[in-house]
Amino acid sequence: MAHVDKRVSEFLDMLASKDPTPGGGSGAALGGALAAALVSMVCNLTIGKKGYEDAEEQMRDILAQSEALRAELPELLEADTQVYGRVMAAYRLPRKTDEDKAARRHAIQEALREASEVPLAIADRCAQVVDLALPAAEHGNNWAVSDAGVGALLAEACMHAALLNVSINMASIQDAEYVDDLRERMTALTASREETKARVLELVHGKIGA
Amino acid sequence: MAHVDKRVSEFLDMLASKDPTPGGGSGAALGGALAAALVSMVCNLTIGKKGYEDAEEQMRDILAQSEALRAELPELLEADTQVYGRVMAAYRLPRKTDEDKAARRHAIQEALREASEVPLAIADRCAQVVDLALPAAEHGNNWAVSDAGVGALLAEACMHAALLNVSINMASIQDAEYVDDLRERMTALTASREETKARVLELVHGKIGA
Repeated sequence: MAHVDKRVSEFLDMLASKDPTPGGGSGAALGGALAAALVSMVCNLTIGKKGYEDAEEQMRDILAQSEALRAELPELLEADTQVYGRVMAAYRLPRKTDEDKAARRHAIQEALREASEVPLAIADRCAQVVDLALPAAEHGNNWAVSDAGVGALLAEACMHAALLNVSINMASIQDAEYVDDLRERMTALTASREETKARVLELVHGKIGA
Repeated sequence: MAHVDKRVSEFLDMLASKDPTPGGGSGAALGGALAAALVSMVCNLTIGKKGYEDAEEQMRDILAQSEALRAELPELLEADTQVYGRVMAAYRLPRKTDEDKAARRHAIQEALREASEVPLAIADRCAQVVDLALPAAEHGNNWAVSDAGVGALLAEACMHAALLNVSINMASIQDAEYVDDLRERMTALTASREETKARVLELVHGKIGA
């Protein structure tokens, strides 16, 4: 059963337990999905509302994107728990002969790559949610602007949270070129998102007048 | 049925819908609960583990607190959806006579106070989760340190997210003294948490070596 098919309370229990999955990567993916859902909510509270006729087309466009991200993040949550298992399985491979050791080393390195790519994808989707929160806050229903703000705050935090999981796995990867590439992709993701989040929060405070 | 008794996917659907509850305040409460669960996980991965005997008592103490917060945040999520309904109901009260109008005004102001106190309580519990993530990252199982980092990131963001909902309601409260008091309590909450989060992340990066 996929994690999103479980009850919220059950998912929280699994997260809190000493079982290492679901763990931080899954928490980041679910947080990102919550953020995407809030961006969708702002769009849904704007589409068809009097006074927001001019924003309708843009809101439909944002909604299509936020709903796609909301569907994708739970899939990445599943993938994150699976790649973790693959890393653990690789570490448990036999290491009696030199051949064993070389095969084990190779399997570990392959699994660590996958275990870096999945949280990087989670971070990328969270970064996209941050970007969508900005036009949602700017042109969406004023009355729901704080929900866009919550979406931006949550998505930006979950982006950084997912990147911690990239960093852990990256620390054991031996291919220096690949590690450099990962680092570049991480920097590109985070570069402008702090600023975007700050702009969303500025809009929120401006519109609610507090 | 309480929101935590629903399936994760169903909760996400409800959040994304044009129904204004659950909204941003509920997202913040659930994010805080996810963060508390991750702090609990770090404790559960440390208690009884070889090499962490000295940390055991502290981890049991942190765990008791993080589990209490994990239980309380879903209750605050319910309360948040309820106070929203009370604000809406107060606005819908009759306003034909002067007496009606005065009663309506009074009911709105009362409901807005409640609708400020609940997200402030959510923010307070999230702030407590940030504080617990620090000793969890410092003395907990090194192997789970990134989970403490994710907990700190999520909890700090959700604290700010909940405070947006305090700000919205505060903007319509007429009692200036009460508004000043709210502002002071908000400032006290956020004061040191940015720094605490940064210290947690420093510990995480130090321990994972990336």
